[in-house]
Amino acid sequence: MRIEKFVSLIRERGFEGALISPGANFYYLTGLNLHEVGERPTFLVVNADGNYHLLAPSLYENAIEDFPVTFWRDGENPYHKLALILGELELSGGKLLVEDTMRADWLLNILRTGNRAFEPYPLSPVMGELRMRKEPDEIEAMEQAAKVVDRVFEEVLSWDIPGMREKELALKIELRIRELSDGISFEPIVASGENAANPHHTPGDRRIRKGDIVILDYGAKVRGYCSDITRTIAVGQPDEKLVEIYDVVKEAQENAYRAVREGVKAKEVDRSARETIAKAGYGEYFTHRTGHGLGLEIHEEPYISPEGEVTLEDGMTFTIEPGIYIPGVGGVRIEDDVLVDRGRGKRLTRAKGELVVL
Amino acid sequence: MRIEKFVSLIRERGFEGALISPGANFYYLTGLNLHEVGERPTFLVVNADGNYHLLAPSLYENAIEDFPVTFWRDGENPYHKLALILGELELSGGKLLVEDTMRADWLLNILRTGNRAFEPYPLSPVMGELRMRKEPDEIEAMEQAAKVVDRVFEEVLSWDIPGMREKELALKIELRIRELSDGISFEPIVASGENAANPHHTPGDRRIRKGDIVILDYGAKVRGYCSDITRTIAVGQPDEKLVEIYDVVKEAQENAYRAVREGVKAKEVDRSARETIAKAGYGEYFTHRTGHGLGLEIHEEPYISPEGEVTLEDGMTFTIEPGIYIPGVGGVRIEDDVLVDRGRGKRLTRAKGELVVL
Repeated sequence: MRIEKFVSLIRERGFEGALISPGANFYYLTGLNLHEVGERPTFLVVNADGNYHLLAPSLYENAIEDFPVTFWRDGENPYHKLALILGELELSGGKLLVEDTMRADWLLNILRTGNRAFEPYPLSPVMGELRMRKEPDEIEAMEQAAKVVDRVFEEVLSWDIPGMREKELALKIELRIRELSDGISFEPIVASGENAANPHHTPGDRRIRKGDIVILDYGAKVRGYCSDITRTIAVGQPDEKLVEIYDVVKEAQENAYRAVREGVKAKEVDRSARETIAKAGYGEYFTHRTGHGLGLEIHEEPYISPEGEVTLEDGMTFTIEPGIYIPGVGGVRIEDDVLVDRGRGKRLTRAKGELVVL
Repeated sequence: MRIEKFVSLIRERGFEGALISPGANFYYLTGLNLHEVGERPTFLVVNADGNYHLLAPSLYENAIEDFPVTFWRDGENPYHKLALILGELELSGGKLLVEDTMRADWLLNILRTGNRAFEPYPLSPVMGELRMRKEPDEIEAMEQAAKVVDRVFEEVLSWDIPGMREKELALKIELRIRELSDGISFEPIVASGENAANPHHTPGDRRIRKGDIVILDYGAKVRGYCSDITRTIAVGQPDEKLVEIYDVVKEAQENAYRAVREGVKAKEVDRSARETIAKAGYGEYFTHRTGHGLGLEIHEEPYISPEGEVTLEDGMTFTIEPGIYIPGVGGVRIEDDVLVDRGRGKRLTRAKGELVVL
């Protein structure tokens, strides 16, 4: 069970326990999807002896079964009940892991309610080690999420895109993802023409027209697990310069993909993409990291960046997404989701990677 | 200017300064909408002398103008730059306000980077006092957001609802809101038949059919400001019991609305709704507070609950939304957005409140 693996790890690292609020780590450990918690304090408490207990708002009385839990009602002070749970689990001080994304006011209340003896540390470095190595059921969900975005790309190519506004196309992609999966993993990006030069463009009112290059970046969720794909297409024959850039990005993506090997560091995969682009003379236009880990979160370990010290292992999943962005001209990005499988990279997304001219 | 009002208030309360991460308070004070920040540390630092400075990821170099700002690039340590800003603003210890929703790992890093002398306190009680009292431009945005949900309700009544699945209707409402405004203020709730007995129902695959009561709860955003409306409609003549409940909820909502007066406490408005429902014999089936403040956030001060000690003033905005939920039978909720205007309540949402039988 995942909680047991987690307990071994925190004991090994010398922590007394952990306090985890709802989010990806909470879901990973409990299987409980408490998404409407908002401002109501909710904590999973785990100690290094392997005991654990949940504190949740009474709103969830019907949603939580077969889990040790205490509920608090509106009007009650949840931190008094938390103090009792901490006592029950013999947590009274020492090094305590705290969910990174926990609200600061919850943390302040924990530290104030008679728990000043705790030394809080961020949970993610410990949790990242577990979550980075995907189990078979996690990989299966990610494969399904990848199939959804492949299918949506095939469909996009049949849509009547010229004349459409960026945000119309983004919405159409979003709705199709929602039909085919549990939802989007992030708001789709549609960046056309000169907007394609901005890797963080928000889809706007610009109408897509002949001669445009269009970057499409979107993802789906299946049972909590994300996919994330980028394809760059051309509407009518694009500028020669953009075709040249496309070929460079394609080669960089392919080289980085081939660099994926068990035992290789994440930064070596990044270097492979970066060197390919630099050699072609576009180094200064590749302004972001090569990729990011993918799983319950759209950005997680291992990051494929020049600083990426993680050594790749079977079961790790991440994106490879080099890009070139030239202000005033446009840009190209190609992104696939990759699994380390039997020592080598295996693409989860398989939509056509060659330049499509509509 | 808002920052100046805020500075007076923190000085009055004996705080040395404030550290504010992106969210509603950040937007309220700066007018900057940095929504794609994610895991990259971003802080507005304010001191009690009225000086302020922003630390932001370099991603935003083109988005921030006319604001004192320092950027940090990927690979740099933002907390080193934060330490410089704190030094510049002469913040080296004492009582410091911290944004409630700040990520815990950011707070831990702040307290570790040579700033252990700070005593952190949650920002919301201080900020709530400012944000509770809306300015004319805020009220105007809220009026527009309310008009959008009124209009969508009129349109819903013309749709062919019987046979539709809850989640189809929810999506159709969402898309219409997105067309008419800057977006939804929360995921629409559609709860039909026995599902209407659950005030927190998530729209599902249930098809809406004749005899159903259907609760519709949805909201729009205009320039960051929220609306939030609930109407309960009947598809074909509903059960007599539900008609009776509807009348009780309608009366409770009307009584609470009439109880809104400058100088009255929020809990008195709650009591008015609660007593009406209790007198009719349904007290135990009204399981939530009567309403919540509304503005940049969908839930903010003043809360209209039995514990609501806030004294109402002109410019405050909140929902009034009593409900009755009977397991196995169904439920009714009616919600309007209300402004305190010239000493009395003024409804911002004005869609028909009588039971509509489709």
